[in-house]
Amino acid sequence: MQHTDIMTSPTDYSTIPTPATCYVDFCLVPVGTANVSVAQEVAQVQKLLNASRLTCTMHSAGTTVEGSWDEVMKVIGQAHSLVHQTGVLRVQTSMRVGTRTDKTQTAAQKIKRVEDILAAEQD
Amino acid sequence: MQHTDIMTSPTDYSTIPTPATCYVDFCLVPVGTANVSVAQEVAQVQKLLNASRLTCTMHSAGTTVEGSWDEVMKVIGQAHSLVHQTGVLRVQTSMRVGTRTDKTQTAAQKIKRVEDILAAEQD
Amino acid sequence: MQHTDIMTSPTDYSTIPTPATCYVDFCLVPVGTANVSVAQEVAQVQKLLNASRLTCTMHSAGTTVEGSWDEVMKVIGQAHSLVHQTGVLRVQTSMRVGTRTDKTQTAAQKIKRVEDILAAEQD
Amino acid sequence: MQHTDIMTSPTDYSTIPTPATCYVDFCLVPVGTANVSVAQEVAQVQKLLNASRLTCTMHSAGTTVEGSWDEVMKVIGQAHSLVHQTGVLRVQTSMRVGTRTDKTQTAAQKIKRVEDILAAEQD
Repeated sequence: MQHTDIMTSPTDYSTIPTPATCYVDFCLVPVGTANVSVAQEVAQVQKLLNASRLTCTMHSAGTTVEGSWDEVMKVIGQAHSLVHQTGVLRVQTSMRVGTRTDKTQTAAQKIKRVEDILAAEQD
Repeated sequence: MQHTDIMTSPTDYSTIPTPATCYVDFCLVPVGTANVSVAQEVAQVQKLLNASRLTCTMHSAGTTVEGSWDEVMKVIGQAHSLVHQTGVLRVQTSMRVGTRTDKTQTAAQKIKRVEDILAAEQD
Repeated sequence: MQHTDIMTSPTDYSTIPTPATCYVDFCLVPVGTANVSVAQEVAQVQKLLNASRLTCTMHSAGTTVEGSWDEVMKVIGQAHSLVHQTGVLRVQTSMRVGTRTDKTQTAAQKIKRVEDILAAEQD
Repeated sequence: MQHTDIMTSPTDYSTIPTPATCYVDFCLVPVGTANVSVAQEVAQVQKLLNASRLTCTMHSAGTTVEGSWDEVMKVIGQAHSLVHQTGVLRVQTSMRVGTRTDKTQTAAQKIKRVEDILAAEQD
């Protein structure tokens, strides 16, 4: 009898989609510039993000972007290219990426959930 | 005189490409499964990576993938979907992403550079 | 003539201090719990952080803590132990750590710098 | 009857220990140096790590250190100071930190577990 393990067949992987929604927090650092401050580059990236239709929230240690996997990753890739275009030879980014299939939860909802738990414990 | 600031015009951002090469080290963690071990999920992801044409190196705290930005990000997105397909409701990944425009340097070359410096100091 | 390379002598490393100030953004994830939500654990960690004297800012993808290296790392280690005490067998944290010797810059100042650059370009 | 919630009392937090063992993978990046290469700084950090008694494994996208929370965090803090001592004004590190209370697993064991799963599926 012939046994075919679909999951382990390499050709099947091409049909796996990327996630429809994701949650990415990233922190981009230009490397190899004499300038210690990265504010100029961060500002350029913020303008790029604002021009996209994605929900973005800047905080002091990074920026959170919400959208489809492909869209979010594309705009962060463009952020790297944008910083390279200003003459920076090396760009290093740290990312936290989250996906979930049970429900969609916005950045604001995540924070509210924690605050509600803390408030309830105060009672 | 008309002044046109090309860089700040939102419509121009669409023409910025994603990087032709990048270097991504990622660590994927399934969340919300009763199982403490993540080895099963990591093994599934390794098979997905092996099926791609990208250069991948697994180490004890993650896997490094080299290739074009779009290809690398696509396969990591597929890794999220693959783990979700096994019933995991939430997947969290930590990534370090590097791009450089001055030269291409493989994983092996990076390590050799450091080892050469250390060996030279021994002399 | 005797040559002593102080920097490469192993015994000297013990005298190197840890940084007096640092900036750490961390995201803690409990692993191996059947619960998809991590809000309960995050809330417990927030209470621990509030009990410390460190400046902490929670955002939707993590929490930023400012203080001396030793104090900040201690409280994040305690956060791991606290979550373990609730029965979680495995805890995974992603951290971004920054130190600088030229000046001290608070979380609020970092964001203002970027906003000022963006505002100036609007003029 | 009087009810005292020990866990929510701020004064109790001081007694929480940091984890006895942890697993940290870190990638240190010097910022604000004109030099694109970070190999020189990475080599200095490797010597510092080798001088410690901790188990360290360098790979192309970082270094994994195993030991007690306090020891591991101390040596990474010293790595920041060491790089600052060479004149670098800003140092940024990305870390993945894991702790578990069910068992201790070395770097080598983690990789073997995944390889065993992959080998078993080949049969």
